[in-house]
Amino acid sequence: MLEKIDLSKKMSKKEFNTLMRELDAKLGRLQRICKEKRIPVIIAVEGFGAAGKGTMINRLIEPLDPRGFKVYTTQSETENEHYHPFLWRFWNMMPGKGRISILDRSWYRILLNDRFDGKTDAKSLATAADEINSFEKLLTDDHIVLIKFFLVISQKEQKKRLKKLAESKETAWRVTDGDWKRCEHYDEYFRLTEEALQKTDRDNAPWTIIESEDREYAAAKVISTVVKRLEDAIADADRRAKLPRASVEESAQIFPDAFRASALAGIDLSKTLTKEQYQKQLKELQKKLSRLHGELYQRRIPVVLAFEGWDAGGKGGAIKRLTQALDPRGYEVHPVSAPNDLEKSHHYLWRFWTAVPKAGHIAIFDRSWYGRVMVERLEGFCSEDEWRRAYKEINNMEECWANSGCIVLKFWMQIDKDEQERRFTERQQNPDKQWKITDEDWRNRAKWDQYEVAVDEMLVRTSTTYAPWIIVEANSKYYARIKVLKTVVDAIEQYLKTHK
Amino acid sequence: MLEKIDLSKKMSKKEFNTLMRELDAKLGRLQRICKEKRIPVIIAVEGFGAAGKGTMINRLIEPLDPRGFKVYTTQSETENEHYHPFLWRFWNMMPGKGRISILDRSWYRILLNDRFDGKTDAKSLATAADEINSFEKLLTDDHIVLIKFFLVISQKEQKKRLKKLAESKETAWRVTDGDWKRCEHYDEYFRLTEEALQKTDRDNAPWTIIESEDREYAAAKVISTVVKRLEDAIADADRRAKLPRASVEESAQIFPDAFRASALAGIDLSKTLTKEQYQKQLKELQKKLSRLHGELYQRRIPVVLAFEGWDAGGKGGAIKRLTQALDPRGYEVHPVSAPNDLEKSHHYLWRFWTAVPKAGHIAIFDRSWYGRVMVERLEGFCSEDEWRRAYKEINNMEECWANSGCIVLKFWMQIDKDEQERRFTERQQNPDKQWKITDEDWRNRAKWDQYEVAVDEMLVRTSTTYAPWIIVEANSKYYARIKVLKTVVDAIEQYLKTHK
Repeated sequence: MLEKIDLSKKMSKKEFNTLMRELDAKLGRLQRICKEKRIPVIIAVEGFGAAGKGTMINRLIEPLDPRGFKVYTTQSETENEHYHPFLWRFWNMMPGKGRISILDRSWYRILLNDRFDGKTDAKSLATAADEINSFEKLLTDDHIVLIKFFLVISQKEQKKRLKKLAESKETAWRVTDGDWKRCEHYDEYFRLTEEALQKTDRDNAPWTIIESEDREYAAAKVISTVVKRLEDAIADADRRAKLPRASVEESAQIFPDAFRASALAGIDLSKTLTKEQYQKQLKELQKKLSRLHGELYQRRIPVVLAFEGWDAGGKGGAIKRLTQALDPRGYEVHPVSAPNDLEKSHHYLWRFWTAVPKAGHIAIFDRSWYGRVMVERLEGFCSEDEWRRAYKEINNMEECWANSGCIVLKFWMQIDKDEQERRFTERQQNPDKQWKITDEDWRNRAKWDQYEVAVDEMLVRTSTTYAPWIIVEANSKYYARIKVLKTVVDAIEQYLKTHK
Repeated sequence: MLEKIDLSKKMSKKEFNTLMRELDAKLGRLQRICKEKRIPVIIAVEGFGAAGKGTMINRLIEPLDPRGFKVYTTQSETENEHYHPFLWRFWNMMPGKGRISILDRSWYRILLNDRFDGKTDAKSLATAADEINSFEKLLTDDHIVLIKFFLVISQKEQKKRLKKLAESKETAWRVTDGDWKRCEHYDEYFRLTEEALQKTDRDNAPWTIIESEDREYAAAKVISTVVKRLEDAIADADRRAKLPRASVEESAQIFPDAFRASALAGIDLSKTLTKEQYQKQLKELQKKLSRLHGELYQRRIPVVLAFEGWDAGGKGGAIKRLTQALDPRGYEVHPVSAPNDLEKSHHYLWRFWTAVPKAGHIAIFDRSWYGRVMVERLEGFCSEDEWRRAYKEINNMEECWANSGCIVLKFWMQIDKDEQERRFTERQQNPDKQWKITDEDWRNRAKWDQYEVAVDEMLVRTSTTYAPWIIVEANSKYYARIKVLKTVVDAIEQYLKTHK
């Protein structure tokens, strides 16, 4: 993509000034329209050292309302960032609806500077481009406008600019050894950049190469591109707003029952344990888990445990038996209910991505991102397109986590309809448990069969080698809690054994 | 407070078990009631090394619903934390309404371990206790339940426990050189602790000393204390819910007009600049500011600029002339409107404290925490007690920031009523500016006189040496923008000169 670039492109000052007056006015207006229509925008600025990324961003924001954008600078990972999956810190930079995030370097660091500097290990390098492509797809599918620039200058120009920076007292501190080294090995850095751009140039997230020897030309091209992309995005949003929306009933009826894959059909819910068996095993397993938690912490291995299941399926009880064995400084339980308004203004996976545990910690989710393909699907809170796409998006997210060394387990607490009714009634009669039962629980119960279809599909589509579903036979609370504990203990032991 | 402690206190296993059964059941119930009544709770656990803080927290959370609390461990500051005022990281641990934050060590670190280890500098030491007391007062005034424990063991017992930990392979990593050193110099650490506790033991936030040689006794005392404090807090919340609320009209009528201090009365709004003067000075000042911004960044000096003023007073325009001169990687503009639901579930200063800039960065607030004593006061969004208290709370907050080396400036953009009308009308007639004007602006305008009373009181009460108000004569946009720029430039130059 860079080979055939003509770096001699220029623009006269006069031509530039006329064009920019028009573009600036347009851009200011477009920002306001995007805010109104709640369109989020990401502008990622990458490029060779001293190609003028900072100056470019300065020029770009000039016509923008400063209350509507934020500029993020991506430097080397801090320790805290290093102990998270590599995309985590970028999730923390995502713009809310109607806002603009401008990134001075971005997730491409891992394929560019960090790779050149030898900071990207082979394992991360192998998966980074795929993770980036999935991530960008997820963003653009959610109608986030993603604009990627790469600023190019020649080695000769780069050397000249670095020298000039280094000579002035005010700017000398900005030129690092790394800058000089990358300039010296320009060809190697060029080749590695070419590879990264090729792998990640997609229809939904194309690269725009900016010939940056002439600053006027470069600025005009960047801002023209942003204007064009925002105009397209607004037209697209208007078009989508006019589309009729499929009704929920329509999308619920997807497939003849006989042909659906079923994960729940063959479950033996009669499995049980005596109180004595339970207490003995509970004690042993909790002791083991407690020891393993210390080892996870020391070896910096993160764990994600997600709990889903029928209402009154025993999620809370199972979680409690886990946390009793854990050092509270090393885990966090995330109760998941309807998103709050900050969460609603982001991608539906945002609140989970930003909660991914630091290496060595355990994150337990009481309900999870799977709400997308269950309650949101059935209640029509998202479109059919959206929940259908979610299986893949969720698998990609969990794969990123697993790639970063995270143990990911998901539990489905399975009870039958009779057992649920028994528990609901019991809760209503016990003053200390009444708070656990609401009208919504009864309403959900009425939709049991529809939920079963969704759950079956979810279990089949999202049980993966890197993040398996464990179906827990939960009519017996004793049996269920022990199965959960044992599964967690076994998984950790297995991981520790195979990752020395 | 520690001198007369009887460390021989004990409890029999049997007595303990009977008591704990009752306490655990109570605590579970109390957590649910606090959740319902949206009472936030902070439990800070401090104590000598190996006194059993971790074990204690583990025991404490046993009966709690893990979805309703979070445990935070306070270790040495990370680099990022170090570049913020020292209370900043604790603001990030604050519980939302109805939630519990449990702190394994807390803001007292600065007066205890960090002081003993020589990490607390003399300047911070001089202000820390005052800052802590103001902070705790602010929390408890907002009806956050704050429970502080200090766990005490003797030097002999401490030595014994550290040895035991160090001897086991599984726990040896938890014993640090610092632990041994603090044990060796037990008396010195004891004395320094005594001083910290005395300085910070207040009616609203009392210390509970826990004799911790006997683990049962200690656990029973901690949990009994928590139960008692939560019961009190719930009774207090019920009592408050029944109090009649003063009406807004009542609280607006506070004082005969003739006696009020006025900051706005003598302002000369006829000040103006010609376009030529404006353009020349703008260019010069922006050039200076740009250079100063680099110096701030290198010397790691943070800056907070808050903008308030009448609607259409020119806040946006003034902010824009500032940001044009700034490197976008080093500043952030925070537009402040009504709080979102996450923000509403916290103290009203939470969203500002958590947005305090990192050392070397500039945070610009377009509207600010002063909403408390203007719109919230006038519209009755908070009680009279609350807004009256706010002046002091705000001064304390700004003082904390200034103590940490932050430059804090606040601008009031002053126009007269005629000028406002002229600008409102102009906005309505210009298609590119219509978005700037809403019905609410006209409604606020109708309350001009009431606002004037509130603004005068605010300016008088909260203009301090460490965080002055600058009243900007803003009928002339040119004059106003230059005054803002010049004030910022002068303040930074002055700071750099006096802080070598």
